[in-house]
This record gives sequence, structure tokens and C-alpha cells, in this order.
Amino acid sequence: MGRQKAFLDKLSRFFQIRNKLLRQSLAECLGTLVLVMFGCGALAQHVLSSGSHAIFLTVNFAFGFGATLGILVCGQVSGGHLNPAVTFSLCLLGRERWRKFPMYFLFQTIGAFFGAAVIFGMYYDALWDFEGAFNVTGSGVTAGIFATYPGTHLTTLNGFFDQLIGTAALIVCILAIVDPYNNPIPQGLEAFTVGFVVLVIGLSMGFNSGYAVNPARDFGPRLFTAIAGWGDVFLCKGFTVVPPTKLLLSCSLRVGNGWFLVPIIAPFIGAIIGTVIYQLMVGIHVEGEAREKKERAEGENVRLANANKKDRGNSLEY
Amino acid sequence: MGRQKAFLDKLSRFFQIRNKLLRQSLAECLGTLVLVMFGCGALAQHVLSSGSHAIFLTVNFAFGFGATLGILVCGQVSGGHLNPAVTFSLCLLGRERWRKFPMYFLFQTIGAFFGAAVIFGMYYDALWDFEGAFNVTGSGVTAGIFATYPGTHLTTLNGFFDQLIGTAALIVCILAIVDPYNNPIPQGLEAFTVGFVVLVIGLSMGFNSGYAVNPARDFGPRLFTAIAGWGDVFLCKGFTVVPPTKLLLSCSLRVGNGWFLVPIIAPFIGAIIGTVIYQLMVGIHVEGEAREKKERAEGENVRLANANKKDRGNSLEY
Amino acid sequence: MGRQKAFLDKLSRFFQIRNKLLRQSLAECLGTLVLVMFGCGALAQHVLSSGSHAIFLTVNFAFGFGATLGILVCGQVSGGHLNPAVTFSLCLLGRERWRKFPMYFLFQTIGAFFGAAVIFGMYYDALWDFEGAFNVTGSGVTAGIFATYPGTHLTTLNGFFDQLIGTAALIVCILAIVDPYNNPIPQGLEAFTVGFVVLVIGLSMGFNSGYAVNPARDFGPRLFTAIAGWGDVFLCKGFTVVPPTKLLLSCSLRVGNGWFLVPIIAPFIGAIIGTVIYQLMVGIHVEGEAREKKERAEGENVRLANANKKDRGNSLEY
Amino acid sequence: MGRQKAFLDKLSRFFQIRNKLLRQSLAECLGTLVLVMFGCGALAQHVLSSGSHAIFLTVNFAFGFGATLGILVCGQVSGGHLNPAVTFSLCLLGRERWRKFPMYFLFQTIGAFFGAAVIFGMYYDALWDFEGAFNVTGSGVTAGIFATYPGTHLTTLNGFFDQLIGTAALIVCILAIVDPYNNPIPQGLEAFTVGFVVLVIGLSMGFNSGYAVNPARDFGPRLFTAIAGWGDVFLCKGFTVVPPTKLLLSCSLRVGNGWFLVPIIAPFIGAIIGTVIYQLMVGIHVEGEAREKKERAEGENVRLANANKKDRGNSLEY
Repeated sequence: MGRQKAFLDKLSRFFQIRNKLLRQSLAECLGTLVLVMFGCGALAQHVLSSGSHAIFLTVNFAFGFGATLGILVCGQVSGGHLNPAVTFSLCLLGRERWRKFPMYFLFQTIGAFFGAAVIFGMYYDALWDFEGAFNVTGSGVTAGIFATYPGTHLTTLNGFFDQLIGTAALIVCILAIVDPYNNPIPQGLEAFTVGFVVLVIGLSMGFNSGYAVNPARDFGPRLFTAIAGWGDVFLCKGFTVVPPTKLLLSCSLRVGNGWFLVPIIAPFIGAIIGTVIYQLMVGIHVEGEAREKKERAEGENVRLANANKKDRGNSLEY
Repeated sequence: MGRQKAFLDKLSRFFQIRNKLLRQSLAECLGTLVLVMFGCGALAQHVLSSGSHAIFLTVNFAFGFGATLGILVCGQVSGGHLNPAVTFSLCLLGRERWRKFPMYFLFQTIGAFFGAAVIFGMYYDALWDFEGAFNVTGSGVTAGIFATYPGTHLTTLNGFFDQLIGTAALIVCILAIVDPYNNPIPQGLEAFTVGFVVLVIGLSMGFNSGYAVNPARDFGPRLFTAIAGWGDVFLCKGFTVVPPTKLLLSCSLRVGNGWFLVPIIAPFIGAIIGTVIYQLMVGIHVEGEAREKKERAEGENVRLANANKKDRGNSLEY
Repeated sequence: MGRQKAFLDKLSRFFQIRNKLLRQSLAECLGTLVLVMFGCGALAQHVLSSGSHAIFLTVNFAFGFGATLGILVCGQVSGGHLNPAVTFSLCLLGRERWRKFPMYFLFQTIGAFFGAAVIFGMYYDALWDFEGAFNVTGSGVTAGIFATYPGTHLTTLNGFFDQLIGTAALIVCILAIVDPYNNPIPQGLEAFTVGFVVLVIGLSMGFNSGYAVNPARDFGPRLFTAIAGWGDVFLCKGFTVVPPTKLLLSCSLRVGNGWFLVPIIAPFIGAIIGTVIYQLMVGIHVEGEAREKKERAEGENVRLANANKKDRGNSLEY
Repeated sequence: MGRQKAFLDKLSRFFQIRNKLLRQSLAECLGTLVLVMFGCGALAQHVLSSGSHAIFLTVNFAFGFGATLGILVCGQVSGGHLNPAVTFSLCLLGRERWRKFPMYFLFQTIGAFFGAAVIFGMYYDALWDFEGAFNVTGSGVTAGIFATYPGTHLTTLNGFFDQLIGTAALIVCILAIVDPYNNPIPQGLEAFTVGFVVLVIGLSMGFNSGYAVNPARDFGPRLFTAIAGWGDVFLCKGFTVVPPTKLLLSCSLRVGNGWFLVPIIAPFIGAIIGTVIYQLMVGIHVEGEAREKKERAEGENVRLANANKKDRGNSLEY
């Protein structure tokens, strides 16, 4: 046992990364990988089993608790954002440094890319069995496992608004959970609560286009599908939905082109709106109250100190 | 970073509201918005996807965990009632001041109104796609997304009783959770527990008319539908249920008119009954025990103080 | 506000019950009422909506979280057993006094009776709408909402074994949760954990006869149905299952007579078996370890005291 | 009461086992029994009720929360691994002694064997009712209740990869949860979090072959089925899926022979990979940071001690 410990210790020292930002980005990468692996895995199980091993609720559970587990994996190191929109919102509020934003965005996307790759490998046989050949142009039926596509009823404008509202709702809830002046939950349960937020967003905002609300979660897997052989995932013309997969893929490709930009841009605007709403309606008031209490306490201290000085003066005179 | 902080601080001081009751009402407004947005969003997903993206259970989860998140958003500021019947019950017990009641009621209703508005905007395309035109008189099929309507089997009397029991059950559980003399759960988990209460009420009391058990949650969205173009949401004659939506809208409009009054009036009577039952069977006994313990301790202190005085007297004599 | 407080205080003192056992039994009664109200309510929603507002999973959730809420309502006062088999097991282990057992049994049954009554009132219209007339002999279709009936595949022997195993599993888990020498969960989360136990038992042991595993939960509602007009709930001959309700009522009446005795007797035998298994495999070992640690510590103290005495002796001699 | 206590105490001392490893193995046995009893029970309910009392999600819940309860039952005594792959991973990291590994493996398999036996007894009538005769060669339809079998679409290579990824995902999450240098969750909630991990793995990785990811959970029940009369559970040729059971048994026997080795071998390789990934991306960095902090603190202490010595030197000279 002693030799094993020594060997492990040596290994550990060898591979340890000194740069803190890189270490955090790496953790963020693993966390996002976990989120996307579990989330897209549940989507794969839903689509590929034609509903026998999943319902839409199980997809929501997987994304929700996948977020919880992703945060648990990396939260102590990197904060567990898993989502560039969350990083953006915390930068806006001055709680994270802006230089973290591009690094986190990059590594979150890389994590999401590899999360999709793991699920691709895991369900490789099932994908071939399901589609015959999945890498033909315009297919897209199994493409919805990895990236999000708008439902047939959705215009791009409404899709943009959908992503914007979803992200704003996410940000309002997350800011309430991590607000240092508004401590609603016991230390250590943040990850579970964020999981519930993601779950509830899926339950109530998942019909239009599959609730990406996260640029990294959507772009990383989409890039993977482009490389792995699905054609036209970025610029696509729409296709007919195959009946047995109607369940999920009413969320199919409709917009002529450029849908992929919507889940990248809209979440950041949603993050701004969510941040403003939470701050105006709750955040700045609890912060202000805390500040006033502090100022009062300091004022009191000054008064007391003065009084003490005076007393001491008196006592010295005495 | 320094300049950003200074700017944010300035903004924060500018927008801060000094009046505490207004601040609390505003928080309550945001909390109820969150609850109704998630809850009605899940109903919309259920109805509009014709069951492919939801089952009734997902609606229950959304209302339950939506309540949790609503309470987390505003609980530290306003107590997180989200429901005039809860405010009413706490006023009855003397734990909140009566002047809070009308303000909370108003802002909870405003929050519910805007929660419905958000979902209306989010699913605008899907609503048009589902119904063709949703704003015709007597349609009501999608009206059930926002407000509650009694099932076809329900008489108004039984509907009244249904809302009354549902609210009484809610109040019994909430009073047990927040009773200062009966501490069943760790600090900070109240929001989650209340979410479970709302979930369970939906699981077991949701068939008759959709478990409003909350005047604000029902009236705010109903007002919104009246303005947004659904006709006769207040005074309606009943209609035939369209087959593919039978799932949810067996909860359709049946009562000739005035159903909308039931989920406004019955919850308050239910709140009184729930409060009385909890207090008689558990509340006053734990309170009494705490009071007796305190009185005994005080009596003991007096005795000890007397004994001490006597001792000191003795020691002085000594 | 002052006058309201004074009035409430007066009321509270007037209605307070001095007898502790009665107070505990009353709390147990309300807790069991909550459990049965939510559980049987979910069964009613399942049967009466013909599956549109429920699946079997929602019934499991309702019994699980209903147990959680029932325990939260009364746990601080009475321990939150809600089940005579649990009381029996704790008496066996000497953790509760035997005289509590008959009182708890009685009041748990009364609570379950009134829980069924509440659901009967709430779904009165729906019951009439569903069955036409529910109080005819041999119907039994809606009788399964309240009490449990064996599935058509089940012999009485296997049914007995089913209840026995279910209760033994329940008791093993509950003993682990509340074992004073084996503290697996944070204080205050017992109620939630017991809720999960009941949920899981429903998920995996609910097919044979509906997992009563609780004499009070089964007998109280059965008594209510006998009074409310369902014939032959105690001595029944079996009947044909109506197709649309096959979902739940594959759990229908089959055994010629006397099934009602099974969920009353088997749980107590299961409680004994569960208690023995847990104690033999985990309980007595953790208890023994704690005792040995205590004895060692005491031995150490004695040794130290002796050593001290000796030292002091030495130092005195010195 | 006094005599009962004395009797129980005597019994307890008589049956207490002194050997710590045996005591731990016994606890591990009961914990795995609980896991497999609830998990396989849910599978039985799913298959035997032909989906009326279960969906695949309920099976996931049962395995997830069954793991939680299994850990709660034995965690304080044995650590609550319930899975030889977890024990293996902790041995690799030097957190458990290697001699624990064979004992735990053995007793976990025994526990899983008896867990399957309990479910077999509980659903004996239902098994006969479902299949007619379940112990004929090549049937296998109900064999999937106990052990896992690959889906018809799965090659052995992909099945191996499937088990490997599933176990790696499990290990990454569990290592994050129990990492002594990375405390993401409050003490005492580990069991619940591990339950969520198992749940999510079932939601997203359950379609290929039923997510054994645990050699004991798979081999114990498989051995039981071999003994109880299911033929060819180790070397089987495949069979046609009966339509009404398509839901679950698309996971049927396909590989010619030797599938049973996959869920025994692959999890250990997955455990190695999961351990390496977690350690490289998060584990060694948080450990390194903790070590550096400690070394800095010690360095500081040495410096202070030197400074003190010097001071004292000075003060002595003074």
C-alpha cells in the first residue's frame, strides 16, 4: 500500500497543471461533457428506442440531473457554469473576471463536443440499425439527438424569442440561487437546485425547439454531427418527418438556413434580460439592505469608538 | 473591473426601492411570475404537443418545482407565499400583518398575469398552429393552458368542495412546514418541501378542475386570456371537446357561468378550514408544550434567583 | 394585532390537550389522514380519469411523497409512524413503549378512514359519472381506489408472502434510517428518505396487490367503502375486469373471501422478519461497536483516573 | 420494558460478529440485496404487467433510489459500494485496501443473488401466469428481469464499449462525490447523489443492454436464474421477441454466447478509465492545491518557529 501511495503521489505531481485558469477550464470541460453525455444520451435513447425506453420526461430528467452531476464534478474548481450564458451573466454582474469568458466558452464547447462523441460511440450500432445510413444529406432525424432544431410550427423570430425567454428564466433562477445577499438554500445544494431549474425549463419550454438555452451545449454537438457525417446541419432546407419518430422530431429542421445561430446568439441576450429583471425586482434590494445594515453597523462602531475615546478621556481625567 | 463595479453600484443605488412593503410585493410578483410561467408553460407543452412532449405528470412536476423556484427567488425578501390563500392563513394566525394581504394579493395576481403573458409570447406560433385561430368565442380548448376550467363531470358544488379541500390540504402541509414550534425540516429546505406539497396535490387532486388552489394563479392568467382574445372566459356556455386534446381538456368549460369565482372564493374558505384542522390537531399542542417549557424554565430561574439571593444573603451574613 | 394575538392565545389554551399519548395519537391520526388522502386521491385520479391524468408511477409518487408529508405533519409530536407495522417494529426493539401500539393502531386507522372519506367527497361526482352507481354488489372496480385487492394471477399464499416481503423491505430501510447507532442521513431528512422507501416499494412491489404494507392504510379505507355502499368488500367472490380500467384493476378481487385479513396480518410478520434481518446483518454490529467504544472510553477514563490518583499520590509524596 | 431491553442486549451480544471485514462484507451483502431487490422488482413489474404498472422510467427510478437505500442501509459500516467496480476504483486510488476487494465482490454477488431470489418468490405466481412455464430453454423473455441481455441491434464489441462507458461515467461521478479534496455536497447526502447518478445512467445509457455497469448486480441474479430453471443464461443462441413484451425485451438475447462475460469484465476496465479521466481533469488538481496549501502553511509555521526562536534568542540576550 505504501508503494502504491508513493507511486500515485508521483503521478499526481507529474500531471498537475499549475495554471489556475487552465485548470478551471479543464474542469468546466469535464462538467459540460457530463451534462451533454447524459442529456444527449437520453435523447438518443428516446429517438432510437422509438419511445419504448423513454418519454420526453426522461429527457428532461437527464438534462436536469445531468446538469446537477456536471456541476458536482467541476463546481468546486470552476464554479460549475457549464453554459457560456451563465458565465456571461456572472461577468456582467462583476462576479467573474471577463477574461474567464472566452476560455470557459471554448472549453465548454469542447466538452459538449466530446460528450456528443461518447454518445455517438455508445449508440453506434443503434444509429446504423435505426436509420440504415445516418450520414446522408437532409436526413436530420437522428441529428436531433445531438443539436436542437426548431419545430415545424416555429418561425425564426418566435424561435429566437423562445431561446431568449428560456435563458432569461434560467438566469433569473440561477442568480437567485447563487446571490450572495439572498441565501435561499443550504450550502452545497446549489447543484441540485440548478438541476431542478433545468428540469422545469425542459418541462415547460421544451416544445418549440428543444430548450438548448446554452450556446456550448448546442454548438459543440452540432459541430460533431457535421464532422461525423450528418450533412447540412448548419445550412439545411427542411425535410419530412418519418411517422414512428414523430414523438421527438416534430422538432425537425424547418428554417431555411442559419437556425444554428439562434441558440448561440439568443441566450446571451436572454442572459442580459434575465440579469436585469432579477436585479431590478429582487437583487439590488437585498444587496442594498445588506449594504445599509453594514453601513449602520459601521456608523454605530464609529459612534461607539468615539464614545469609548471620550469615556477613556474621562476616565483618564478621572 | 473597478469601473464596472462602481457603475453597477451606482445603478443599484439609483433603482433601489426604500419602501419595504413595496419591495416585498415586487419580489412576490416575480416569484408568482416564475410559478405561473413554468406551470402554464408545462400545460401549454402538454396541450400544444398533443401529448408527445408531456404527460399530466410533467404538468404536476412543473407546478411543484415551479413553486419551489418561485419561493427560492423571493422567499428571503417576502416569505415566498405566491398564493393569497397562504398569505391569508398566515394573517389569520397573526404571523403576518393584515395590511400585507391586499398588496400581496394584487402583486401575486400581476405576477401571474405576466407569467401567462410570457408563455403566450413563447408559444404564439404553436397556438396559431394548433387552433388556427385561438381568439374565437367558445373555443376554450387552449384556454385551459392558462386558467382552470371544471371537468365535464363536475357540478359547481363539488367543484367548490374540490377547491376547498385542495387548499385545506395545502395549508395543513405548509403550516406544518413553517410552524415555528414544530421544526420538521432543516432550515432552507422549506421551498423544496412546499414544491413536493404542490406536486402531490396535483397528483391526487388534479382531475376535477386542475387544482388551482390559488386565487392569483387562476385569476391573473384568466384576465390575460380575456384581454388576449379568448372570448367568454368569465361567462361561458360550454363547448364540445375536440378528440385529440381529450387528454387535458376533459377539464373543459361546463358550468353555465361564474366558474371563475370558485377558484377565487373557495381557497380562502379552505385556508380557514386547513388552519383550524392543523392548529387543533397538532399546532396548538406543540405551541402549548413550548410555552409550558418556557414557563417552567422561567419559574425555575425565579426559584434559582431567589435561592441565589438567599445564598448570597447567607454568604453576606457569613 | 395585539387583540388578535390575545384571542388566539386564549383559544389555544382552551383547546390544548394535556395527555401526551392522546396528543401523539391525534397527530398520528392527522399524519395518516394526509398519507391516505394523497395516496388514495392519486388512485382515484388514475382510475376515474381512465389514465388520462395519471399513470401507475404517479400513484407511487403520491404514496411516497404523501408519506413524507404525513411524517412532516406529525413527526415531531408522535414520531410519524403512520403504520402500525412500524410502531410494532419499534416496540419490538424497545424504542417505543408497548402501550403506544394499540392507541397508534386505532388512531392511524381512524386517520386512514377519514382520508378515504375526504377523497370520496372530493371525487363524488366523478365516481357517479364513472360507474353510474358505485354501490352495487360485486362491482369493486372503484373499490380498488380505497383498499387493496389481489391481482387475478395471485394466490392467497403468494399474496401473503408479497405483503410480508414488502413490509420486511420497508422495515429494513426504515430501521437503517432511524437507527441511533447508524446515522446515514442528516437530521431532518428522515421524512424524505422514508418517502423514497415507499416510492421504491411501489415501483417494484406494486403489481401483485397494490402494496398496502400497512394495516391501517388498508383497513381504514376498506371500512369506509363498506359503510359508503360498496358491497362485499370483506367477503367477495371476484368479478370480471372492465376493459378501459384494466390499467389499475388487473388488481381486482379474486380470492373467494377473507383477502382483507392478509394486509392486516402479513405486515406484522413482515415487520418481525425485517427487524431480525436488519439487526442481524447491520444493526447489532453498529450497536456493539458503539457500546465497545463507550466501554473502552470508560475503561480508559478509569485507568486515567487511577493513573492520576497515583500521580497525585506521587506528587503528594514528592 | 426493562426485561425486554436486557433480553435484547443479551441477544445482541450473542450474535455480534467481531471480525470487522466480515461485518463490512455482511453489510455490503444486505445493501446489494436491497439494490437488486428493488431494481429487479421494478423490472419484474415492468415485464409481468406488460407495461400497465410501469414504464422504463420507473425501472430507472427503482435502480436509482434502490442504490440510495442500499447505500443508506450499509454505508456507515462498509462504505456502501454495492458494486465491485466501485470497490476496484477506490482500491486503485489507495483509498481502500486491496484485500477488501475479493470479499466485497463475493458478498455483493451473494446479496444480488438473494435479491433476485426474493423477487422470484414475490412474483412466482405472476411469472407462471405470464409465461406458462418459464423454465424452458431459450425462453429468456422473463430472464431479462434478473440479468441483462444485449438488444438485438447490438454487436458484442459495441456492447463491451457500452458497459465500459457506462461504468466510466458512474465512476467519474462517484469519485467527484466522494473526493476528500473536492467537497461538493453536504455530509450525508452522498447516498442520494449516487442514486441520481444511477438514475441518470439508466435514463441515457439504458437502451443498448440495460445498464448493468456492475458485475455483482448482473452475475448474482444470472446465477440465480440458471439455478431456478431458466436454461442457457450463460450460453445462448438468441430468440424471437414476443410482441407484447417488446417494450423491455428489445433487450433480448442476440450474441451467440458469452455475453455474460461482458458485464463482468467491461466494468473493471471502465472503472480504470473513469478513474484516470476524473483524476487527470479534476482530481489531482484539487488534491495538489490542497497539498500546496498545506505545505505553504507548514513552511509558514517553520518560518514562524524560526522567527520565534530568534526572538526568544534575542529576548534571552536582552
